[in-house]
Amino acid sequence: MARIVVKFGGTSVADPAKIEKAADKVVREVALGHEVAVAISAMSGVTNQLVEYCNSITTDHDVREYDTVVSSGEQVTAGLMAIALQKRGISARSWMGWQVPILSDEVHSKARIQGINTDAMEKSLKSKQVAVLAGFQAVTAENRITTLGRGGGDTTAVALAAALKADRCDIYTDVDGIYTTDPRIVPEARKISRISYEEMLELASLGAKVLQVRSVEMAYKYNVPVQVLSSFAPEIGSDLPGTLVTKEEASMEHVVVTGIAFTKDEAKVTLIGVPDTPGVAAKLFGPLAEANINVDMIVQNISADGSTTDMTFTVPVNELKKTEDVVKKEAAFKGVELRTDSEVTKLSVVGIGMRTHAGVAQTMFAALAKAGINIQVISTSEIKISVLIDKKYMELAVRALHDAYGLEKAA
Amino acid sequence: MARIVVKFGGTSVADPAKIEKAADKVVREVALGHEVAVAISAMSGVTNQLVEYCNSITTDHDVREYDTVVSSGEQVTAGLMAIALQKRGISARSWMGWQVPILSDEVHSKARIQGINTDAMEKSLKSKQVAVLAGFQAVTAENRITTLGRGGGDTTAVALAAALKADRCDIYTDVDGIYTTDPRIVPEARKISRISYEEMLELASLGAKVLQVRSVEMAYKYNVPVQVLSSFAPEIGSDLPGTLVTKEEASMEHVVVTGIAFTKDEAKVTLIGVPDTPGVAAKLFGPLAEANINVDMIVQNISADGSTTDMTFTVPVNELKKTEDVVKKEAAFKGVELRTDSEVTKLSVVGIGMRTHAGVAQTMFAALAKAGINIQVISTSEIKISVLIDKKYMELAVRALHDAYGLEKAA
Repeated sequence: MARIVVKFGGTSVADPAKIEKAADKVVREVALGHEVAVAISAMSGVTNQLVEYCNSITTDHDVREYDTVVSSGEQVTAGLMAIALQKRGISARSWMGWQVPILSDEVHSKARIQGINTDAMEKSLKSKQVAVLAGFQAVTAENRITTLGRGGGDTTAVALAAALKADRCDIYTDVDGIYTTDPRIVPEARKISRISYEEMLELASLGAKVLQVRSVEMAYKYNVPVQVLSSFAPEIGSDLPGTLVTKEEASMEHVVVTGIAFTKDEAKVTLIGVPDTPGVAAKLFGPLAEANINVDMIVQNISADGSTTDMTFTVPVNELKKTEDVVKKEAAFKGVELRTDSEVTKLSVVGIGMRTHAGVAQTMFAALAKAGINIQVISTSEIKISVLIDKKYMELAVRALHDAYGLEKAA
Repeated sequence: MARIVVKFGGTSVADPAKIEKAADKVVREVALGHEVAVAISAMSGVTNQLVEYCNSITTDHDVREYDTVVSSGEQVTAGLMAIALQKRGISARSWMGWQVPILSDEVHSKARIQGINTDAMEKSLKSKQVAVLAGFQAVTAENRITTLGRGGGDTTAVALAAALKADRCDIYTDVDGIYTTDPRIVPEARKISRISYEEMLELASLGAKVLQVRSVEMAYKYNVPVQVLSSFAPEIGSDLPGTLVTKEEASMEHVVVTGIAFTKDEAKVTLIGVPDTPGVAAKLFGPLAEANINVDMIVQNISADGSTTDMTFTVPVNELKKTEDVVKKEAAFKGVELRTDSEVTKLSVVGIGMRTHAGVAQTMFAALAKAGINIQVISTSEIKISVLIDKKYMELAVRALHDAYGLEKAA
């Protein structure tokens, strides 16, 4: 007997009929003797509709009221899931965030969970009652409803799994796992059966938007094994039909590169002739952070002439204009030349095995050179190598790298 | 300065634009210096949709989960109303039933309010913050959400007005007040500016479905003046643009008849040759009550031959079949002849002045006779006279009575 948290995303509970299908999956876990808690999203489309209601009155709305409005979608599906489980002869009840309670800070609309009091729910689970938790929502010490921000449903599920010391958190979504790269671009892309938290974090933040980054961070911190599964795939009787995100295992080290990620919506900004003095980076990135601009890659090379240097960084394309405004306003950058380019793609190769294997970067550079693709910027971390290239070579580059690392072959 | 509770029904808050119009009405009350609490319904159609979701999984659903699901509609409109008020420069916040808290019994889906702890809301009102309460919902001692049954929104508003000792409860709906009869049948029907709780109870239970009966009972019990107003009528600058439901006032006694109500969906059941023995009525109405059949008029005449009597009563047309089954199963009514007629209309004349004026019934009987309409059954209470007639004469009869009592003239 294990204790499992099962999470259903919006497409998995898009209408009452889909909720019934999702309930069938829960019934199977219960039949295996497991204690099961369910974390549930709103029906797909509902949260957007509720956000739109708020914005149609004013985009400058009170986030406490926004949270009250948008959290209602999960209330509906949690109740319906409990009804669907009861119909199947399973004892079940719904839990709103405030009923558990799941306490959060007061940063409404993107609150962070501070603690989960599981006493009542533990009792319920031990009496073989399935606990159906409305995801995405929590409550402040002042008894106001909060929401955890977009994708907060995954975070709720993992946080609940951590609090309940669950053996596993299964996340049902509309894809059947994590792939070595986007199968729409590389048909040979292969589903990864196991991936480490660190690799998942690098892949998720780069656009493999299967799991919300915060939920992976939380799973990492509390060591919760997370399994990504498709709601719609036929049952295939395998132990690991999806992708298991788990702590690093010895076997993973044999795999040098786990996956290839890319982003299409970044822009490159280069400042030429920046004074090479202490504190100049802070003068640049301080104001950008204050303007809530999400800076990604930052590359600064050594100063050739000893007095000035060049700095390159990337920002989301839709924040490029704002970025230019911020830089131009900064006195320290008077006279500095500003070049921007939104025709770039960031390619990243991610793998835990990189730490102990030489030549991973060289394979990447050679494969891109062979395909005639120029590398504009390089940046590396312990388990990731990222490059910027011209956007028009994106598909070609992804295919070349997938092939160069032999990712189509099972590990 | 007064303290006012304002209630908006579903058609008044059917979309964000209508919520903004409703907010304008609240702004006017605030501008007059009043302390205002708002009780709000779900957008029209939403509650039905949520009920349908539950029923589509199983009609035999757990009512605790049903309540969780259907109460979400008011959560949405309460948050949106707070946002709309804030946009207009008015301090406001939403309150869910569990946040106030509004405590109810555990009879889910048709719970009754047991108490309202107004401490927190009082503080909020005194700081000139508008309190926007999600109507229709409460919370049990076990911290589960309850709903108050259909029309519970009016009940929430009146209960809140009573708890806050409000000076008035304004109920905005899609009609602009209570009329002397249905204006679709009698074009001369006149809006009543003041009506007593007792008269309103008699009219409401007869089909003038403007205010939920329970809310009028509660207003009566706690002496809360309730004003019925249209959300859509242009502002007419009158003190009492709608109908004020209030305690009996001396001036009301001059008006003998206040209004004429009728129902189209009743059926008449007559038992002929019932043994005239003690307890026979209990043998009939006990089983009907157990079968949840809502018996309305009951008429029993004296026994002509001393051994048997005839009994007539009415039931909703859609419960006629069930009623026949119940009666036929009862051993005490073996051999009794059962006659039913669903082609009947119940007409009622209601007025507090009846108590002190003679000849009210005679006016009714004479008017119907003059129109050639036969009276099948008569039943009276202190402030109401009801008759059953052939359904096909309904419109003729209503017009004749409206004319006979001179209801088209202002009191």
